[in-house]
Amino acid sequence: MIQRPRGTRDFLPDEMEKRRFYENILRRTAKTFGFREIATPIFEESELFILRSGPNVLGELYAFKDKGDRDIALRPEMTAPAIRMFVNEMSNEPRPIKMFYFGQCFRYERPQSGRYREFFQFGAELIGNANAETDAEIIAMAVSMIRALGLKDYKVRIGHIGVLRQKLIEADVPKDRMAEVLQKLDKKLYEEAEPLLQSMSVSKENIDNIFKLTETVGGKEVLNSIPGDAGDYLRNIIEILAAMGVNGVEIDLGVVRGLDYYTGIVFEAEAPSLGAEKQICGGGSYTLSELFGGEKVFSTGFAIGFDRILLAMEKEGQVFKNEGVKAYVVPASEDVKLEASKVVALLRENEIVSDIDIMGRKMGKAMKYASAIKAEYVVIVGTQELEQKSVTVRNMETGEQTLVKINSLVGFIAN
Amino acid sequence: MIQRPRGTRDFLPDEMEKRRFYENILRRTAKTFGFREIATPIFEESELFILRSGPNVLGELYAFKDKGDRDIALRPEMTAPAIRMFVNEMSNEPRPIKMFYFGQCFRYERPQSGRYREFFQFGAELIGNANAETDAEIIAMAVSMIRALGLKDYKVRIGHIGVLRQKLIEADVPKDRMAEVLQKLDKKLYEEAEPLLQSMSVSKENIDNIFKLTETVGGKEVLNSIPGDAGDYLRNIIEILAAMGVNGVEIDLGVVRGLDYYTGIVFEAEAPSLGAEKQICGGGSYTLSELFGGEKVFSTGFAIGFDRILLAMEKEGQVFKNEGVKAYVVPASEDVKLEASKVVALLRENEIVSDIDIMGRKMGKAMKYASAIKAEYVVIVGTQELEQKSVTVRNMETGEQTLVKINSLVGFIAN
Repeated sequence: MIQRPRGTRDFLPDEMEKRRFYENILRRTAKTFGFREIATPIFEESELFILRSGPNVLGELYAFKDKGDRDIALRPEMTAPAIRMFVNEMSNEPRPIKMFYFGQCFRYERPQSGRYREFFQFGAELIGNANAETDAEIIAMAVSMIRALGLKDYKVRIGHIGVLRQKLIEADVPKDRMAEVLQKLDKKLYEEAEPLLQSMSVSKENIDNIFKLTETVGGKEVLNSIPGDAGDYLRNIIEILAAMGVNGVEIDLGVVRGLDYYTGIVFEAEAPSLGAEKQICGGGSYTLSELFGGEKVFSTGFAIGFDRILLAMEKEGQVFKNEGVKAYVVPASEDVKLEASKVVALLRENEIVSDIDIMGRKMGKAMKYASAIKAEYVVIVGTQELEQKSVTVRNMETGEQTLVKINSLVGFIAN
Repeated sequence: MIQRPRGTRDFLPDEMEKRRFYENILRRTAKTFGFREIATPIFEESELFILRSGPNVLGELYAFKDKGDRDIALRPEMTAPAIRMFVNEMSNEPRPIKMFYFGQCFRYERPQSGRYREFFQFGAELIGNANAETDAEIIAMAVSMIRALGLKDYKVRIGHIGVLRQKLIEADVPKDRMAEVLQKLDKKLYEEAEPLLQSMSVSKENIDNIFKLTETVGGKEVLNSIPGDAGDYLRNIIEILAAMGVNGVEIDLGVVRGLDYYTGIVFEAEAPSLGAEKQICGGGSYTLSELFGGEKVFSTGFAIGFDRILLAMEKEGQVFKNEGVKAYVVPASEDVKLEASKVVALLRENEIVSDIDIMGRKMGKAMKYASAIKAEYVVIVGTQELEQKSVTVRNMETGEQTLVKINSLVGFIAN
């Protein structure tokens, strides 16, 4: 038997219906915020992702040489493609530009529980400004999406990469080694960050201060202890969010995120129910366009891990009810087959989800199949009923059978 | 500037909104027919597609070696993955199984006008039976989809590969060379088919008869001239289709389709407005599951070329109207910004597509931006109005300005 490739999934009908339902909730929320959907190719030149994330990313890329010997990668994320598209095709559009996207992303790594080589992301980018209003708009949308999905237990934390960078500069960390340090701090690997900082001749006192800064966590009250304009900036965001009805967002200067290109705020949302792999959303403000050959433009964006947030909803016991077939049409005998076809066509024209027996099943077996596909009604088309321009409708839940005129069948079943 | 890879496209917001709209029409129609959506990975083992289409397909596959040295291909179509999934995971489900899918497919070929390396297909498979009811169900759905999209000028032709195969057997064409002949006939390359058949010692008379058979085209009346059970079978399909309200389907024994695995009927839909590349849909009945290690099961399916059918609709002058932003909220001054945030949040909670100025624009520029994004209303939040618990709403079409109480704003804008 041929199997699907490692780390990929097939989605069967029940699962797929659920995924489309929640995907559309995300889509609707983004639209309500004035964001508009875009799409970019499944693959890009590998270079695009290396420019965004540094050469280390190559190890995780699902990369290959195409037949034309080009270095191609299945996209590991969609921010870089979206900004590439902006640079190529949208740079003259009125700003701000509010875009969102949903689709498959890929990474080449050892598949583990809950981590796939093909996974799904929803993301959004707000291109055009670097201010608290922009950041608040993005964070408010991310939170609205999590809420709209029905997830109850989640936590949103906002940090500011500028504060930490400033501190590192003051501590004489060389600019070209800053990323190394930030990556350790992002993962809270203090025992690795300490010797690293020592090797850069950072003093014990400065190291302590840096570590302490990343442990600044709490409500609005912690903003007083944040040096520079960043404290005011974060306060402003918190205030706008509150006006938008988004409360309970936590300040956490330990939110670093492992990427070089963030310029200001960074934020994450997590679902504690997921344990170690609890992050469901991450984002921040950044500039990328100039790396791809465009002018420098400030943006704020985020991505939601669709697979992971669905898992969190499931852990909370959220149940999705599949729709099922409304009416299953069965001809009682061979000679009324065409009449049965007319009946099913009538129902479908009226957008009633309907099926018809195509297996030539006897009534008993047809009823069994109707149960298996969870049909609400079985419509039996028989010679005698047809003489009265009627069919027999069986309610599969109650077992009740009713003789219904064909010209009132749609109303009978739709209600 | 980094460009997107050759033969791929970016979809900007206007285009994407249109594509999602029509994609959802296809989805809704399939659901109405009792089909349910599935999804398979973007890539599969190359072997899967070679088993379906023969080794010749390798030349057109977007194939590569992954980092684990596996032969992988971006899927060129979705029937093989769907049947692979059926064999792996759905073989115990009650039959028939009605599945549909929508997504990207890939081929590696020289990009030309209207042909892309990344393209989009909608497809459906009805797994479980080989009879006229099954085939009619699939053809009726394909036609219903084309109609639901609003395409006016299209033609559906049904052939029967069994008739032609039978004729070739009678003419002593060796079984293992039949595919070669069928491929020539599929492309109407009679001048190449003739020497080929001669090289197989097929008589002039038989060659003439074979060619004549492929030119059997017309309505129900041509069925009398079709030998064997196939004529009755096709008649039965045409009758069921008529009962379902699908008329005007043409019989055309010249519809061959280039693939080995078809077993019975084959059909195509074309949009004459598209010229040489006019095929918008193709399908037929087949067995594939046993090639992938499962039991032999009869299926009928089809795929619609989504890009091509959209092009045909455009050629017919079908216009899609983008939705645009309903309300654009502008604070008249710095000190009412948070109040403006409250207003936009109120609108969004009520699912009104709303935007808010985040650029700190003066009123004139904000109005200009509102025009650019085609906002229906601008909601001006000012100090004086707020004292009356109101905002000023400007209708961007008429220019009319109205003072509206905030607690009746949602009703004012939604109507």
